Amino acid sequence: MTRPEALDWSIDNCTIQRALAVLGDRWSFVVLREVFNGVRRFEDMRTRTAIPRQVLADRLVMLVDEGLLRREPYREVGQRERHEYRLSQKGLDLYPVLVALNEWGTAYYADSSGSPLAFEHRDCGGAVHVTLGCTSGHEVAGPRDVVPRPGPGARRLAV
Amino acid sequence: MTRPEALDWSIDNCTIQRALAVLGDRWSFVVLREVFNGVRRFEDMRTRTAIPRQVLADRLVMLVDEGLLRREPYREVGQRERHEYRLSQKGLDLYPVLVALNEWGTAYYADSSGSPLAFEHRDCGGAVHVTLGCTSGHEVAGPRDVVPRPGPGARRLAV
Repeated sequence: MTRPEALDWSIDNCTIQRALAVLGDRWSFVVLREVFNGVRRFEDMRTRTAIPRQVLADRLVMLVDEGLLRREPYREVGQRERHEYRLSQKGLDLYPVLVALNEWGTAYYADSSGSPLAFEHRDCGGAVHVTLGCTSGHEVAGPRDVVPRPGPGARRLAV
Repeated sequence: MTRPEALDWSIDNCTIQRALAVLGDRWSFVVLREVFNGVRRFEDMRTRTAIPRQVLADRLVMLVDEGLLRREPYREVGQRERHEYRLSQKGLDLYPVLVALNEWGTAYYADSSGSPLAFEHRDCGGAVHVTLGCTSGHEVAGPRDVVPRPGPGARRLAV
């Protein structure tokens, strides 16, 4: 086997790893799923997900600090002011990750009845799915059609 | 605000959550990134990623047990038999998640020089990116064009 070329390059500024530093625990993304599905309030999220109260509070603070969620006040009649959570553009931009995760999860981990969640195109009702394409407009079938290359920020390791 | 419809439905069989139970720590996906980039051997992964030895060993066992990686023997001259790791179809099917994570990470967390990694279409050299489409062939711009619906496996909560 030839030595993998990747070994010549630093991963110190890897943007996948940085994304995972924010998203990389099973709860952060579950919280985002809730907000994507219109569940915006702490108590609703807690009841639905069974995430421990303190863990949910910590994840919400982190997602607000990182700019994925905005925290907005609301007040119901006779109640104190509370907050709900909405996706920022940065949060909304995670949508392809959410859809891709759901596709993979549905392919390999669904009950025999199928996924509990479907994504419908608002205009036509068609099922929404993730595809890979290239800047020249070609459809890309999968990893075998793709060559990983050093990007503009690549740093060669000293040897 | 109207009550979010999502609250009427169980998340017990959510396929996003099941996917995250496998992938939901920052290291599992970093290990997969390595293998996608052709780094298949324990020592190479460890040197490159600085994942603690025991954590890396645990993650590799889990990814093999879950069927994302296959473990294959090799032997270099004068050395004992060792193993390297290759993606199964189930692992390869995570590729859209990897590309989508990298896009998001690059948009929000890259150094000013940009991402260290680029994905090139093998045929034409164009940059590969993730898009959303629907079964009727429409391009889907983002979450505002999509309606989340109960899927075939949806279970209504008792109220």
